[in-house]
Amino acid sequence: MQEATMVKHLKIAYIGGGSRGWAWGLMSDLALEPALSGHVALYDIDFEAAQANEIIGNRLQDHPDAVGRWRYEAVQTLPEALKGADFVIISILPGTFEEMRSDVHAPEAYGIYQSVGDTVGPGGAIRALRSIPMYVEIAEAIRDHAPNAWVINYTNPMSVLTRTLYEVFPGIKAFGCCHEVFGTQELLAEMLEDMTGVTGVRRQEIEVNVLGINHFTWLDRASYRGTDLFPLYQAFAEKYAEEGFSTHGQKDHWMNNSFASANRIHFDLFRRFGLIAAAGDRHLAEFMPNTWYLRSPEHVKQWKFGLTTVDWRINNLQKLRERSRRLVAGEETFSLKSSGEEGIAMLLSLTGASAPMITNVNLPNRGQVASLPLNAVVETNAVFGANSVQPVMAGSLPEDINNLVTRHVYNQETILKAALTKDRDLAFRAFLNDPLLSTLTPSQAEELFTTMLNNTKAYLPGWEL
Amino acid sequence: MQEATMVKHLKIAYIGGGSRGWAWGLMSDLALEPALSGHVALYDIDFEAAQANEIIGNRLQDHPDAVGRWRYEAVQTLPEALKGADFVIISILPGTFEEMRSDVHAPEAYGIYQSVGDTVGPGGAIRALRSIPMYVEIAEAIRDHAPNAWVINYTNPMSVLTRTLYEVFPGIKAFGCCHEVFGTQELLAEMLEDMTGVTGVRRQEIEVNVLGINHFTWLDRASYRGTDLFPLYQAFAEKYAEEGFSTHGQKDHWMNNSFASANRIHFDLFRRFGLIAAAGDRHLAEFMPNTWYLRSPEHVKQWKFGLTTVDWRINNLQKLRERSRRLVAGEETFSLKSSGEEGIAMLLSLTGASAPMITNVNLPNRGQVASLPLNAVVETNAVFGANSVQPVMAGSLPEDINNLVTRHVYNQETILKAALTKDRDLAFRAFLNDPLLSTLTPSQAEELFTTMLNNTKAYLPGWEL
Amino acid sequence: MQEATMVKHLKIAYIGGGSRGWAWGLMSDLALEPALSGHVALYDIDFEAAQANEIIGNRLQDHPDAVGRWRYEAVQTLPEALKGADFVIISILPGTFEEMRSDVHAPEAYGIYQSVGDTVGPGGAIRALRSIPMYVEIAEAIRDHAPNAWVINYTNPMSVLTRTLYEVFPGIKAFGCCHEVFGTQELLAEMLEDMTGVTGVRRQEIEVNVLGINHFTWLDRASYRGTDLFPLYQAFAEKYAEEGFSTHGQKDHWMNNSFASANRIHFDLFRRFGLIAAAGDRHLAEFMPNTWYLRSPEHVKQWKFGLTTVDWRINNLQKLRERSRRLVAGEETFSLKSSGEEGIAMLLSLTGASAPMITNVNLPNRGQVASLPLNAVVETNAVFGANSVQPVMAGSLPEDINNLVTRHVYNQETILKAALTKDRDLAFRAFLNDPLLSTLTPSQAEELFTTMLNNTKAYLPGWEL
Amino acid sequence: MQEATMVKHLKIAYIGGGSRGWAWGLMSDLALEPALSGHVALYDIDFEAAQANEIIGNRLQDHPDAVGRWRYEAVQTLPEALKGADFVIISILPGTFEEMRSDVHAPEAYGIYQSVGDTVGPGGAIRALRSIPMYVEIAEAIRDHAPNAWVINYTNPMSVLTRTLYEVFPGIKAFGCCHEVFGTQELLAEMLEDMTGVTGVRRQEIEVNVLGINHFTWLDRASYRGTDLFPLYQAFAEKYAEEGFSTHGQKDHWMNNSFASANRIHFDLFRRFGLIAAAGDRHLAEFMPNTWYLRSPEHVKQWKFGLTTVDWRINNLQKLRERSRRLVAGEETFSLKSSGEEGIAMLLSLTGASAPMITNVNLPNRGQVASLPLNAVVETNAVFGANSVQPVMAGSLPEDINNLVTRHVYNQETILKAALTKDRDLAFRAFLNDPLLSTLTPSQAEELFTTMLNNTKAYLPGWEL
Repeated sequence: MQEATMVKHLKIAYIGGGSRGWAWGLMSDLALEPALSGHVALYDIDFEAAQANEIIGNRLQDHPDAVGRWRYEAVQTLPEALKGADFVIISILPGTFEEMRSDVHAPEAYGIYQSVGDTVGPGGAIRALRSIPMYVEIAEAIRDHAPNAWVINYTNPMSVLTRTLYEVFPGIKAFGCCHEVFGTQELLAEMLEDMTGVTGVRRQEIEVNVLGINHFTWLDRASYRGTDLFPLYQAFAEKYAEEGFSTHGQKDHWMNNSFASANRIHFDLFRRFGLIAAAGDRHLAEFMPNTWYLRSPEHVKQWKFGLTTVDWRINNLQKLRERSRRLVAGEETFSLKSSGEEGIAMLLSLTGASAPMITNVNLPNRGQVASLPLNAVVETNAVFGANSVQPVMAGSLPEDINNLVTRHVYNQETILKAALTKDRDLAFRAFLNDPLLSTLTPSQAEELFTTMLNNTKAYLPGWEL
Repeated sequence: MQEATMVKHLKIAYIGGGSRGWAWGLMSDLALEPALSGHVALYDIDFEAAQANEIIGNRLQDHPDAVGRWRYEAVQTLPEALKGADFVIISILPGTFEEMRSDVHAPEAYGIYQSVGDTVGPGGAIRALRSIPMYVEIAEAIRDHAPNAWVINYTNPMSVLTRTLYEVFPGIKAFGCCHEVFGTQELLAEMLEDMTGVTGVRRQEIEVNVLGINHFTWLDRASYRGTDLFPLYQAFAEKYAEEGFSTHGQKDHWMNNSFASANRIHFDLFRRFGLIAAAGDRHLAEFMPNTWYLRSPEHVKQWKFGLTTVDWRINNLQKLRERSRRLVAGEETFSLKSSGEEGIAMLLSLTGASAPMITNVNLPNRGQVASLPLNAVVETNAVFGANSVQPVMAGSLPEDINNLVTRHVYNQETILKAALTKDRDLAFRAFLNDPLLSTLTPSQAEELFTTMLNNTKAYLPGWEL
Repeated sequence: MQEATMVKHLKIAYIGGGSRGWAWGLMSDLALEPALSGHVALYDIDFEAAQANEIIGNRLQDHPDAVGRWRYEAVQTLPEALKGADFVIISILPGTFEEMRSDVHAPEAYGIYQSVGDTVGPGGAIRALRSIPMYVEIAEAIRDHAPNAWVINYTNPMSVLTRTLYEVFPGIKAFGCCHEVFGTQELLAEMLEDMTGVTGVRRQEIEVNVLGINHFTWLDRASYRGTDLFPLYQAFAEKYAEEGFSTHGQKDHWMNNSFASANRIHFDLFRRFGLIAAAGDRHLAEFMPNTWYLRSPEHVKQWKFGLTTVDWRINNLQKLRERSRRLVAGEETFSLKSSGEEGIAMLLSLTGASAPMITNVNLPNRGQVASLPLNAVVETNAVFGANSVQPVMAGSLPEDINNLVTRHVYNQETILKAALTKDRDLAFRAFLNDPLLSTLTPSQAEELFTTMLNNTKAYLPGWEL
Repeated sequence: MQEATMVKHLKIAYIGGGSRGWAWGLMSDLALEPALSGHVALYDIDFEAAQANEIIGNRLQDHPDAVGRWRYEAVQTLPEALKGADFVIISILPGTFEEMRSDVHAPEAYGIYQSVGDTVGPGGAIRALRSIPMYVEIAEAIRDHAPNAWVINYTNPMSVLTRTLYEVFPGIKAFGCCHEVFGTQELLAEMLEDMTGVTGVRRQEIEVNVLGINHFTWLDRASYRGTDLFPLYQAFAEKYAEEGFSTHGQKDHWMNNSFASANRIHFDLFRRFGLIAAAGDRHLAEFMPNTWYLRSPEHVKQWKFGLTTVDWRINNLQKLRERSRRLVAGEETFSLKSSGEEGIAMLLSLTGASAPMITNVNLPNRGQVASLPLNAVVETNAVFGANSVQPVMAGSLPEDINNLVTRHVYNQETILKAALTKDRDLAFRAFLNDPLLSTLTPSQAEELFTTMLNNTKAYLPGWEL
């Protein structure tokens, strides 16, 4: 449609990123985009990590394929990072992997297994309690130093953390960004090839209506060039219900790769509920009672998806740190390639550098999902235009699915309230009501809660534990 | 305030009542009320039972204490009963005790115990599926033959059946009537005696704000003559948390009487959630996950409440039938006494015979409970005036309790939809999501559902089972 | 029902009252009520007036009929008045009669006549702009010094001033109190005598459903002992449409008394719209376009209601001042009699000293009037209980009437916003949209607005005029 | 993005079109679009006109530039037209120009001038009363014969007629289509040239947020390539406030052309209200009180816009008829050119033949305009995708503008109800409340209403007049 416009002198504040992977993807994407230029302030509680990224980012400018002009600068304070920012990107690790080890693995003693442990379930709840105070601080700083900036949140638990930003600063222009829906669009594209022989379909060509909450999102409409994909998906789900089906992005994976799956949960949920769940199996499993998919490691294996251990994450971080060292030292050079994230495309639309785009996003519910509580952070499609993000009216979930989603919405609202008021009892009520704990007695759940809360207490200042 | 006005020539259509107890209470109440007179059409699918009640009711007119003038007449069809009715009272037994035996006891094979089995839980779900078609028929008949009558529903599951009436005939003037809240007011009155020595307080003097759904209703405010009762209840709940406390209406009971309890669940819920639950322990237990109060008969005994067996009900019905025979034969005479139900007081206000009254009632949510879904049937206080029932704005439940209630609301909406569309899969999804089944795997639940549905199939015409 | 309970040591803060009439009514009512006692802090910007009231109030205690024990004390600051208050009563004259002279009479130069000039119309708009800053100050003081007190507002424009209290302090427990609906209940009671010969009916026996905004309230249901009064009112309105009908409270009045009317506007509105307007004709006239009832003094005479001149008010105040002098000097003694206001009855219910009562009240809309904007202050019935005021769900106005009411609601919201932001242009947009100005061109309206605003500028600190 | 897909065998039902202009535009657009083919059923109450269009349409297929393959067929009944239709286009003249002459010119006797007379004002009200029964018939036919078709309404009054379709058949997939917003986008594009020298900007490049109702739509955001256009428009409105500014589409026009204007009302409304009104001056003027822009022909001349007389319309129709004759006879050939309407682009997105598009549309309010009543038909942007139209969340209008819009919304709701129930009194209440009549007394308005209703009575079967 409209040709791209050149937008110069943007300031981006990047909060977090010490864990490297995300930050490098952004740097790469920015370097490849000719329409934008400016500078990026890097803020991380690990200042050395930010400094390493400053060196790596600035070195990228010498890369022969780099067309966007960007200057990187590590800063020591949040206000410094935010001052004058047009965009704020938040991607932090709340706490360390030691706390995450407790989040993910402590419940195993009670027969509760978690595939990710960062969104819902006991792990998600504790992680939220730990992260919310950090997001309170960030939201206050944005209110005071960059009230007109667009704020893009990538951190999990995404719904509750984006919700925290709005609770603290209702005028914030923030949204949560997640690529899980894209994976389901890719699955539908590969289904076309598998079932009809049509090849080369890009995920963007799969039109979908998105509604739900982050990592528990649903599609009630999907089409390709005007053809309704639901009947085909029905046949596809029947065909692969037992055996499973992995996309190219997931191939050879689920046995060896803790991020992969064979989509058996996708197929099971579709056959039970009639809508297409639009997140990876690892996430979806955690939203259902633990008798469904997560009651034992063997059971998980039957469902053909992986449990991502924290040991794997620690090992992976070690590799990233080593790579960071090599990049800083100039021993390794980036090969620039697009990350596939929509972040840059969003920046282009938000700055007016390109025409409006439609993609899925997490925003407070103003009625875009009619059946979910107002103000909770929900995921739907939205139109990104110049200085504007407008959700589309996505309609309602059917009562049965809505019930499953609403339970998590109110749990998250309860956790937020508990975190803001440092109310241990209230936090426990939300914890206890999580579907993954549905087989525990209240006293077993209380025991587990006490253990897990204790393991994260360094991040709960002011709580009476 | 206003003195009573005499209202003559009322017509009441009484649907059901073959099970005797309720019908006789109403007859007794009507006989004792001087301000009203008219006639009552008795309709029951068991016409002989209706005829017996006709004889018993008309005989009451000769009772020396009877001051209201009423003529009773058994009729053979619903339209005949409804024609010209000012009030319709519905109190039916949906199916027989054989079906109820399955509702209540079939789940025991899976370790699921139910104390009543007529509201929620597996028993409540199946009972709803069986009753909804009956209520569809009743609602259509009211729409066609008595569209302006006030309709008082006493049958369980009350929320979903009252909801059915509105679904079929949105213009209906119906409400559901339940005395469980009164029991909690009595508990508070007896607490005053136990804790402060104040005696002689009537339940009507305990002001409460009521909000929730039938049998899972909550009080967020309770006072006596301007004194907030919550601090006192806190101490009371601590004092009797372990030992329990039975009201006069419950005394010497819970061990011997399947309707009694020691209110330990009342106290436990208050200590956990901070609001006062306002239904009997037997009902409250069924709304929570089965790991809480109902995981075994021994566990129930520890919580000091009774499981009402269907054998007990059958035995009790036998006694009522025998008593009916004696009353018809003139071998026994009624001793008239007020039932304690508010039905007659409501009639007086609705006819304008006495001033408006405030009591709790079940009505579609138009916002009286701001935090629950619109149109679901909720329980709050309402003002009963001449030809008018207006709920008061009761506010919102806190998020954590609201979550527990909403889960049942959507389950009930799903069951209603499933019953109307005869959709087995949808019905199963609601069944599976009931908290009492939270420890079962989907396939165990499916097995149980199939058994129970099969046991009630005579009442599911048109279903593919 | 419940016998009265004795409530001692109440503290009431009375703000305003220098204009005497209201204050004396309250003193009289308090003296006659045996169930309450305590002390009243009198605060007025005219401290001498407060001191006079202190003397008059304390002297009342010696009156032989005085049964309530009350101590009165004039205080010099708002915080002093509010500290420890259980109730706050606000009844102020915003500005002086000089400002009111402009409000009421300045528009006459443009052919715009006003019968009261304190609610809507050009006079109501300017009065609101002048009063809102005063209410901001009061609301802030209540928030800081008596956040848990019940606040009863009697000052006009009532809707917008009560709205201001909630805007500044959302947690306030305030409501607006007005007796205009009572006058319509009296009209209906006298109609019963005139049309059917039934005598002695008290206004409280007329059950009504109230919905709308203050002084533009409507009844969509009215009954007496169960008999619908609408058909009778239809005949009554036809009978007296031309001639008019004055109640005892209005008799011999409308020609001589600027507060009286012959209810011709009541009848005209009923014949046009089918609902009963429930405020005096003088108020109702001001809500309609000026071509309807107020286009000239002659036209007003034909409609048989009075224009209350500010000269009359000044003269009346002079008499009250003289009477105050005599009362202070002990030259005159009060004859205690009930004012007919419901204020004391409300206090009894709010303190729990008597059973809950139902009466009409002005409160923020939480859905009690489904068809009007949320948060606007609307008038409906409410249940007054111990420490609780709960509106009843009053339903919706029909679209045509709703349209007339909504126009004023949004005008008032606009005025509030303009007053808070000191935005002259925005204030003018609301002014210009008032129905009484519908015959003016925008430039004529601007000229009038400038004049009127200038006349009140002493009360608009910080405005750019 | 996505390349176009070929969609064959579409069926379009075209209802109306006897007035020729619209029908020919569509034919031309269809002929020029390569991605679509199928057949068009032409239905008009003037069957000969439909037959003429059949000949003209089929002849177009021989045109050298025609790439879309379409067969045209005049049919005699509505069911025949609708059977199997994928799309239904409605563009009718309700009644004849004789009725329209009364709509537009009868009020002039009372000093009420109308520039169009087909949307609001006395003319719009009467036209709505006449058209609604026709739309009831059409909606019932669609429900019975083409329930899944997409229905595009082009007839005025657009809001109330689209609303009628949903009232009769709530499941309809209908929307109203209007190009007035495009004109404002063009004005903004030409402003860029006039004020900054930037040329060649297409209207599609002007991003806007649209909210309001048809012909009384507002923009609260407008940008070009990321630059906020409001500050520029402020200067532009000041510059041309007196002199006016006509776009290329309007040049040399307003004096000679009854469709043109100099945008002085645009500028006046912006200077008063701060938002950009997004319809032509001729339409906007009719939504405001008649003292603003329409109080006399001289006044209209000062505001530099035209009054479209019905004589002009009759004359224009005569020319179209003559042209039709020549086209049928083959004496004239079409020169194919795009109409500039977005109808074809919408068809492409709705069929999935091209990627989703964003444009403005009229749809029932589900919350897309948060400040306007639910279910009223409102105008906002929407995303058109495959078999889907989803409004974007457009936010709220400021209270002062919202008040002006809401008044018309409720008037339209009242008119709809009056038309459906044939209630003359109710219709008059809406008529009387129109801002254009704000200077009339109720009896003058009644006189005018009686005259106008009488002139249209042939189209009001079943009314008691």
